[in-house]
Amino acid sequence: MSEKLDLNEIRQEITLLDQDLLALFAKRRALTLNVAKSKVQQIRPIRDQQREQELLIRLIKHGKTLGLDAHYVTSVFQTIIEDSVLNQQAYLQSLANPDIQVPTVSVAFLGDKGSYSFLASHRYFSRRAEKIIESGCQSFYDILQQVESGQVDYGMLPIENTSSGSINEVYDLLQHTNLSIVGEITQPIEHCLLTSVNTSLDKIKTIYAHGQPFAQCSNFLDKQSNIRIEYCDSTADAMAKVAELQDDTIAVIGSEEGGQLYQLHALEQSIANQTENHSRFILVARKAVDVAEQIPAKTAIILSTGQKAGALVECLLVLKDKGINMCKLESRPIQGRPWEEMFYIDVEANLKSFALQEAINEISPHTNFIKVLGCYPIEHISPTSVPSSEF
Amino acid sequence: MSEKLDLNEIRQEITLLDQDLLALFAKRRALTLNVAKSKVQQIRPIRDQQREQELLIRLIKHGKTLGLDAHYVTSVFQTIIEDSVLNQQAYLQSLANPDIQVPTVSVAFLGDKGSYSFLASHRYFSRRAEKIIESGCQSFYDILQQVESGQVDYGMLPIENTSSGSINEVYDLLQHTNLSIVGEITQPIEHCLLTSVNTSLDKIKTIYAHGQPFAQCSNFLDKQSNIRIEYCDSTADAMAKVAELQDDTIAVIGSEEGGQLYQLHALEQSIANQTENHSRFILVARKAVDVAEQIPAKTAIILSTGQKAGALVECLLVLKDKGINMCKLESRPIQGRPWEEMFYIDVEANLKSFALQEAINEISPHTNFIKVLGCYPIEHISPTSVPSSEF
Repeated sequence: MSEKLDLNEIRQEITLLDQDLLALFAKRRALTLNVAKSKVQQIRPIRDQQREQELLIRLIKHGKTLGLDAHYVTSVFQTIIEDSVLNQQAYLQSLANPDIQVPTVSVAFLGDKGSYSFLASHRYFSRRAEKIIESGCQSFYDILQQVESGQVDYGMLPIENTSSGSINEVYDLLQHTNLSIVGEITQPIEHCLLTSVNTSLDKIKTIYAHGQPFAQCSNFLDKQSNIRIEYCDSTADAMAKVAELQDDTIAVIGSEEGGQLYQLHALEQSIANQTENHSRFILVARKAVDVAEQIPAKTAIILSTGQKAGALVECLLVLKDKGINMCKLESRPIQGRPWEEMFYIDVEANLKSFALQEAINEISPHTNFIKVLGCYPIEHISPTSVPSSEF
Repeated sequence: MSEKLDLNEIRQEITLLDQDLLALFAKRRALTLNVAKSKVQQIRPIRDQQREQELLIRLIKHGKTLGLDAHYVTSVFQTIIEDSVLNQQAYLQSLANPDIQVPTVSVAFLGDKGSYSFLASHRYFSRRAEKIIESGCQSFYDILQQVESGQVDYGMLPIENTSSGSINEVYDLLQHTNLSIVGEITQPIEHCLLTSVNTSLDKIKTIYAHGQPFAQCSNFLDKQSNIRIEYCDSTADAMAKVAELQDDTIAVIGSEEGGQLYQLHALEQSIANQTENHSRFILVARKAVDVAEQIPAKTAIILSTGQKAGALVECLLVLKDKGINMCKLESRPIQGRPWEEMFYIDVEANLKSFALQEAINEISPHTNFIKVLGCYPIEHISPTSVPSSEF
């Protein structure tokens, strides 16, 4: 390595090197798509975590000879493997559902450009479509209406948040819709205090915020004295307003990524009570999808058991006996039927699998209502870990 | 891209490509070290987030022409940039503190091989030393003793956890030590249910667990009927015992990474109540370090104000006036002095900076005790975000 220390020259070299990296990433992606194609022929599962671990251990060893530390190598290759797995899944899904392969999709979501739902929609379709027609909505009900009426192809709905819990309104709406859940995505939520002009925290007199981010940032807001809170219907509205006002005493709570669409910048980052905050979104469509056998799948079921004592336990025992893992159980009251509950159950199983088909048949007699809301690929790719003795 | 679908051949190609990737990562790291060297001469800050953002936007555009989606490109280059920043920081720190540059370090931590403290110690020193001499301790007090007596160079102590909060015992011990805080690291905590033999959840009758993971997994444990909990002094002890017993009815709560040292594997992953769980650790040594000016620094201060009303507010106002951001404020009772409190304050500032020196001078008259616990580089590298319009 030459010892020339001209910053511009070194940066030029890094730029060229980064282009080589991108070319290799693209080539690697094409190769792993060929791996997926070979797995179609042999019906082998997409992931082989033991092979992934061996791969990581080899890369760590080789990296050490080049002066790279094990944690860096692990972290960067976990990202590369995640991309590879998600792409292979998307490819197999497009084979299993040839009619969902379209270059342009239309999506309804809550809020406007820059909302968390907007960001989740873009991220979900980034590897699935070339163009997204956006439809920002004022309510969850509007989103479902637009999909049901055929105005848009998909609806993106937040279903739970790691800090504020399940979003009951969406659960309740799912009871009364004929739409199917066809996908999921988890979006990190990072609330920042955004301003349109250069200012400092002690100058801020008014903060615009939507109710949910307001609640999630209560500790930070409690510490600010003499600040007035203006409630807004949506974060995007609030951001647009603050962008327009160009006032150094006014700020808004929102994501940095979303705020950049309004030329806002972050005065304070990570102001939420819980620094780790994620929302899980579901994607709904008029037509259910098939999930390819090689892909881990989740199935969402709703059922009610009337007032039969112990009926829910019977249902859960059936799942347990079939070796089916339940990853979520929520209950919600049924409107107009006091003391009755609707149960929302997510299981890690493919609807097409013999085990789940059998389970649903055996569960049915214990219920007075049962419906499958949808079966879709699990989007979360848990990273393969490496024994710490390799570090 | 050829359409040959022989899995072994494709994998061979991927292996070769991954070696090219590693070589480029190593070359990039060497180039960014040259960037750091040029910044020593010019005293420019290590990070230039505007430049990073421009870099990411260019890479996203270029990646799109190669069929790579924006989120993947962003995510993998954020990891590469983080590595580059941490390495440049480590390099500048080694220049500022020539005597800490040694190939072998000895570290005292809580528990045995495989504990979270063990994992944090290895991660911290992975880019700073070639060899680590481990000293597993039974208590936080023992760790401090070993460092104070010169038996080891460093002590690694957990100071707070995102789910269970501050670790008061460590805060209290810091009051009475002459050691300095010289570094920090945040370690993800992911509790799993680990077993030594192949088994299934419904066969498990006994779970070994340390008190802290037990509390953090209470929701999962409540759902398991007929399971007996055996409390253990440390997670590592519990893992060693379960590994020895080779019993398909016995499991232990611990990290997958740590468990692999005992040939344990995860029967269930992510069983904690809060799925996002991190512990922040501090590193203590007998001698304080200097933090290079180009690096963002944190300074930890403890002070007590006696029973003077409003004195703490006066101290905090001084920090505010100097434009110094306070990132943490904790108070702990002082033993033997009822109604008096010791305040632990972390500020984002270099101890050598004029602003902080002035602030400490102005704060002193309001206190009856004030001490700097240490000044150290901020280890958390917040990723540079990209406007969502680029996605």
